[in-house]
Amino acid sequence: MRRSQLFVKTQKNAPADEVAKNAQLLIKAGFVYKVMAGVYAYTPLGIRVVENIKQIVREEMNAIAGKELIMTALQRPETWKGTGRWSDDVVDVWFKTSLKDGKEVGLAWSHEEAIIEMMKQHIASYKDLPQYVYQFQTKFRNELRSKSGIMRGREFIMKDMYSCSINSDDHEAFYQSSIEAYKKVFERLGLGDDTFVTFADGGAFTKFSHEFQTICDAGEDVIYVNREKGIAVNEEVLNDTTLEQLGVTRGELEMVKTAEVGNIFNFGTQKSEEMDFSFTDAEGRKQFVHLGSYGIGVTRVMGVIAEKMSDDKGLVWHSNIAPYTVYLATIGDISEQVDKLYSELTGQGIEVLYDDRDARPGDKFADADLMGIPYRIVLSERTMTDNSVEVKSRTEDKTQLVALKDISHYIAEKISESN
Amino acid sequence: MRRSQLFVKTQKNAPADEVAKNAQLLIKAGFVYKVMAGVYAYTPLGIRVVENIKQIVREEMNAIAGKELIMTALQRPETWKGTGRWSDDVVDVWFKTSLKDGKEVGLAWSHEEAIIEMMKQHIASYKDLPQYVYQFQTKFRNELRSKSGIMRGREFIMKDMYSCSINSDDHEAFYQSSIEAYKKVFERLGLGDDTFVTFADGGAFTKFSHEFQTICDAGEDVIYVNREKGIAVNEEVLNDTTLEQLGVTRGELEMVKTAEVGNIFNFGTQKSEEMDFSFTDAEGRKQFVHLGSYGIGVTRVMGVIAEKMSDDKGLVWHSNIAPYTVYLATIGDISEQVDKLYSELTGQGIEVLYDDRDARPGDKFADADLMGIPYRIVLSERTMTDNSVEVKSRTEDKTQLVALKDISHYIAEKISESN
Repeated sequence: MRRSQLFVKTQKNAPADEVAKNAQLLIKAGFVYKVMAGVYAYTPLGIRVVENIKQIVREEMNAIAGKELIMTALQRPETWKGTGRWSDDVVDVWFKTSLKDGKEVGLAWSHEEAIIEMMKQHIASYKDLPQYVYQFQTKFRNELRSKSGIMRGREFIMKDMYSCSINSDDHEAFYQSSIEAYKKVFERLGLGDDTFVTFADGGAFTKFSHEFQTICDAGEDVIYVNREKGIAVNEEVLNDTTLEQLGVTRGELEMVKTAEVGNIFNFGTQKSEEMDFSFTDAEGRKQFVHLGSYGIGVTRVMGVIAEKMSDDKGLVWHSNIAPYTVYLATIGDISEQVDKLYSELTGQGIEVLYDDRDARPGDKFADADLMGIPYRIVLSERTMTDNSVEVKSRTEDKTQLVALKDISHYIAEKISESN
Repeated sequence: MRRSQLFVKTQKNAPADEVAKNAQLLIKAGFVYKVMAGVYAYTPLGIRVVENIKQIVREEMNAIAGKELIMTALQRPETWKGTGRWSDDVVDVWFKTSLKDGKEVGLAWSHEEAIIEMMKQHIASYKDLPQYVYQFQTKFRNELRSKSGIMRGREFIMKDMYSCSINSDDHEAFYQSSIEAYKKVFERLGLGDDTFVTFADGGAFTKFSHEFQTICDAGEDVIYVNREKGIAVNEEVLNDTTLEQLGVTRGELEMVKTAEVGNIFNFGTQKSEEMDFSFTDAEGRKQFVHLGSYGIGVTRVMGVIAEKMSDDKGLVWHSNIAPYTVYLATIGDISEQVDKLYSELTGQGIEVLYDDRDARPGDKFADADLMGIPYRIVLSERTMTDNSVEVKSRTEDKTQLVALKDISHYIAEKISESN
């Protein structure tokens, strides 16, 4: 994309009322636009990061037989009354509104009941199971306060997956495969080293559920980790029984601030019983479906990445999710040559943000850093006499001259190394 | 996809309260799930059609320099009060709700004001123009009645594009290119022959705006067309002056029922003036931005296609937007061979819905027709003795034997012919 066609400008300052570092950075760099507290729009730069994250999640969910669908924001009270979760006393984040005839409707803050209601129509026999479905959906949560930028929004994008299994063994097998899939997701997002599968309270049906917690100063959670052993527990289950079971002592655990980027939960048959979601087994008996739910906060993850992978110059995107791989800038008036280079690079499938503005080189370089584009390529009269360009990685200070004819290959190599 | 992994079953009957043919068909075939009147979820089959339509629209919007972004559903009253459109008396389709502190918020039924508010922050100079932005976004409209299935929803997906131009000449040039882009969209969706660029009232700034109207019995509009001359007008502008200008007489016009699948509108500088959306021109003078808006109802188009391209057996998707290209079925127990064929076809990039259920061939064939998959491939012991498969197009009755080794090529050829 040409900068001249990108309406957003970088900004020196974020709005005065914006206290979250992730949103400050993302606003200054032109990725998000703040509509109100906890409600953010995504510019052409921001949506590319969102879509890149979604695509990584999508590929890993598809790899474990997940089928994508899309539910609705508007919810009927009847869907939620059976489990007691329509009540504002039980769920205090509902946004509710009403149809013209006065009938109340809600905006989905979750889709558990909604998906089960739909699946009930289609699942009758053990032959119809297992089923794994997921969606990327906007959730609405009427948070009392919303001061964490895109890490906790009133309107945000979440991937939620639901598993319907015939028995607890099958459920457990899928549950384990989802843990592996989630690990791959966070690895690909560049969060692998700092993200821990964290033991949490399991509710009625299992001893533990699992949270995926990423070390992050701006996080709202505290967990206890042993990095060497790769063990993490949250406060709910920090007790002698758990520690013994996991083979770790209190002294070996380090307390860290974290943000929950994903969670997986075994409902057992509790919710199926509440909603009468059943099937007929091979012997003709009625059985309840074993349910699991598996969430990843897509925009929250983007916020966590913005918090963690940034420096005093701005954002630092991993090439897997960067909006563009290359920031192309010039020194001097050599538009013909740079237009040609831009065509060549994009022709090779490299995503380029081409700063074709009439601006000072220093301003272009500052924007390249602030936006966190992995590689900056500079073409100038000086580099052209060498038939070369100057390349700098966002995470390094040194620049390097690379021959024009080799540049596509060089970038492709660099990306492949970073994965 | 294997049918066994697709949780939806086809149904003999749609819900009793569903009166729209498009929704009846889409529900019976397992593409949509009705949450309430005007609110539909999209199953793994349905979302594939939605995404295929979106991708065609996206490609054509990108081709005219459109940049994708994503705004928010939640809207502040302040955004809309300046133009008078927060009032329920002016806009009677608002869903409104409130934050915990009592502050009222609305659900976006349009994003005109919201986008302008954002663009204002970034556009200051003539150098910042032109800009063309679009989004695929869920719109919420509190319709009094909602009886047209997915053709008029309370929650639906729309592509809306906005152009910001420096003057009326530049605006007009983009407006014309958007007409051409829209024609390509409807051509690729298989609606080209029945979709008319229809002259409509232009409002304050131009004589005409343009609607894209598709002939459809279930449509809510009536237009007057001359198919030979490719001219269409709506009732608002059906008068002698218009007809003379267009070079057509009343007698040459045919009245047809249509559904509006797209519309484009020139705001001139009216809305910019209302919202003080201005820039400094080359001479340092303040000027108002020339605005246009360009909509395509993505899910509405899907409904129109379901209405129009269907027969007594079910849906009939154009291969450009079909959820799968091939419905693969078997007669007899030859699962090993059909598994191999399934792998081969998908390996060639052909999208296959593989009916691996233990079901009668007649039921499989009926589902293939009901779902409207363009090509049905049947493998049986009989066809295997010829090393071949039986192929049937959804739009033809005759079947054809095709050698197993040629089948991928045969399907690819067929698809290329249909475009």
